[in-house]
Amino acid sequence: MSYITVTYRVFDQKHDLHKKAESIALGLTIGSWTHLPALEKKQLQAHKGEVVEVVEEESSEQTTRYFKDSRTTGRIKIAYPLANFSNDLPAILTTVFGKLSLDGEIKLIDIGFPPELEQSFPGPVFGIDGVRELVRVYDRPLVMSIFKGMIGKGTQEFSQQLSDQLLGGVDLVKDDEILFENPLSPFHQRVEIGSKIIRQIHEETGEKKLYAVNLTGRTFELKEKAKQAVENGATALLFNVFAYGLDVLQALAEDAEIHVPIMAHPAVSGAYTASPFHGISNRVLLGKLLRMAGADLVLFPSPYGSVALDKSETDAIAYALTEDRQLKKAFPVPSAGIHPGLTPKLIHDFGRDCVINAGGGIHGHPSGARSGAKAFRDAIDGVIHTSLANAAKESSELNAALELWGS
Amino acid sequence: MSYITVTYRVFDQKHDLHKKAESIALGLTIGSWTHLPALEKKQLQAHKGEVVEVVEEESSEQTTRYFKDSRTTGRIKIAYPLANFSNDLPAILTTVFGKLSLDGEIKLIDIGFPPELEQSFPGPVFGIDGVRELVRVYDRPLVMSIFKGMIGKGTQEFSQQLSDQLLGGVDLVKDDEILFENPLSPFHQRVEIGSKIIRQIHEETGEKKLYAVNLTGRTFELKEKAKQAVENGATALLFNVFAYGLDVLQALAEDAEIHVPIMAHPAVSGAYTASPFHGISNRVLLGKLLRMAGADLVLFPSPYGSVALDKSETDAIAYALTEDRQLKKAFPVPSAGIHPGLTPKLIHDFGRDCVINAGGGIHGHPSGARSGAKAFRDAIDGVIHTSLANAAKESSELNAALELWGS
Ligand SMILES: [Mg+2]
Ligand SMILES: [Mg+2]
Repeated sequence: MSYITVTYRVFDQKHDLHKKAESIALGLTIGSWTHLPALEKKQLQAHKGEVVEVVEEESSEQTTRYFKDSRTTGRIKIAYPLANFSNDLPAILTTVFGKLSLDGEIKLIDIGFPPELEQSFPGPVFGIDGVRELVRVYDRPLVMSIFKGMIGKGTQEFSQQLSDQLLGGVDLVKDDEILFENPLSPFHQRVEIGSKIIRQIHEETGEKKLYAVNLTGRTFELKEKAKQAVENGATALLFNVFAYGLDVLQALAEDAEIHVPIMAHPAVSGAYTASPFHGISNRVLLGKLLRMAGADLVLFPSPYGSVALDKSETDAIAYALTEDRQLKKAFPVPSAGIHPGLTPKLIHDFGRDCVINAGGGIHGHPSGARSGAKAFRDAIDGVIHTSLANAAKESSELNAALELWGS
Repeated sequence: MSYITVTYRVFDQKHDLHKKAESIALGLTIGSWTHLPALEKKQLQAHKGEVVEVVEEESSEQTTRYFKDSRTTGRIKIAYPLANFSNDLPAILTTVFGKLSLDGEIKLIDIGFPPELEQSFPGPVFGIDGVRELVRVYDRPLVMSIFKGMIGKGTQEFSQQLSDQLLGGVDLVKDDEILFENPLSPFHQRVEIGSKIIRQIHEETGEKKLYAVNLTGRTFELKEKAKQAVENGATALLFNVFAYGLDVLQALAEDAEIHVPIMAHPAVSGAYTASPFHGISNRVLLGKLLRMAGADLVLFPSPYGSVALDKSETDAIAYALTEDRQLKKAFPVPSAGIHPGLTPKLIHDFGRDCVINAGGGIHGHPSGARSGAKAFRDAIDGVIHTSLANAAKESSELNAALELWGS
């Protein structure tokens, strides 16, 4: 028999973790057990949830402060038979955290997928290696940047910003996640202009670039819209997966005609992940589930900026995206608060298999976005081959960035 | 110019609510303002977010306990121009709580939709009046019940349970939300058997019943699956909307060929709603948004059971589902912990326009589910026409229920 195993952190008012675990294992599967007739037990055995582990933990200082009454903190791990649900993320989520999400203080902290279940998911179609092939960069973190303030601006501004960023040496540029279908820079025009600029740069410099256009609109129109975009030269897609649903991402990844990398944006995910006492961990939501559903690149708040995640959280996301598994690896994209002076830290913390993603750290460069992009590229080369300080000696762009933002 | 206005509760570390509000209003729209040239200001004026209200609130005792540092609690209301986003819930969610959901402690507590935006959403296709027409019950709360432990059981058990519940006088029966596609009671067989039993009961008793089959599987197959089901006699759909996405519910509601009531289940919603410091309020998520997206009936935890919501929360949900607006009203379905003795309280708290929904309170009746259903019907008639105590004198089923569960 095969199971999915799910770990929860609970804060038990009744101080009986074993009883709580048993009630979850039964309540979310066959309902009751002890008093069933033997025949029914035999019939239902294959559907019965099992308690795998119950570990009492020390209550954190925060936990003790938060609860007025006394609680027993603990981790409990429940195994749910695969026989109980169909092989899709909505069914899995509903089983393991449907009603349970409403049951007082409980946080889903990990999910273990058996190989046969995991392999039925697409995972990243390109993955880290595939995205590297597309931009032909194999030995350093990629550099990505974001458009600045496109709302209310038109296609001329779009073209200018895209060219500047790419010519400075950025590998990928993404739309802002809050740029939707609009008359000033319509989706199809962004796709066409993006494709043209990327083609030109390739002809002129030999470099390959990607531009991730924000795939937005009604759910049931997304596949057709994405296919059209790819036909018209789109090189990558940005997707606000948590405003839609994980299963929608999976369907996009599985569609062979939508053959471009998909970048998952964490918009709305904080509503699930941010509380220590409720919701779903970043490791699971932004890490395991996005990778399974088919994100090639995953944005998440860096541990450095003002909108920051704890380093332990970003480590857990990056690990889930890149640990050795049957599925391809997805690129971690720690975002927000990134400037060239952070490059040594970024490479130390996330390794070379990450994307260094900057907005203000590129557009805010004293000599403009093109110099901002070059500063990042020089910083990365410095950190990998000599040192940041050495690189700054030979790059006025990097030097200016370090003077402005520090190192 | 038209705006959507969104109210957040914030817990400001920097004790400057006005500054925080300004940074949200700009950060989630045009990015910056003060130092823009006059021409650009003119160009961007129509896209600029505006601070509508900033109200400092007293920090609750819970807030004071939770934060180690001192915070200023407050409500801030931001107006986002409709010009900034396309007319769909994923775009709205990403705009008003995308990046912001990740920005420390902040809870989205209310959304005000301008009439022209709200009217572009379907709302409930049947609504309270339409569902009442279908079951031909106009003057009392409806009674609903849930299958008991169907996982691992087959179609014979399904038929038996459905008949018993309906013959006892229940108006609607729903699948358990964790019953997915499975070989023992496949979706299409449940639809066919359900339709046959409902037809028989109509012929024999003249009563009209509904059975909500759980619509599950991959997102892009749901519409076809639902249409097939309706063609084969399905009378209602249960939908785990938060395991999919609000926009998927909307698409189901908008499809004229899926012409049956849709019942939204709150599975997974606790991951968004349960924290006082993060996520989205129940009023918005289970109330306003489910109604706009087209749920005809909305399940939520009752204020009475062990998996309970505060009365203030259930009041807010029920109000959002039923307040006078352009959209039709949706049926509040307070669920969990419901037994016949609670009927006076339920009708007092939710009025006649609600659905009284029971699982254990029907199946656990000493004389079985059929008597359990009859006990509820007798209780309701008693509360409406005389009293619960009076009704119990003439109904042995109700009397037995009150003896078991109290009143
Ligand atoms: Mg952004
Ligand atoms: Mg249930």
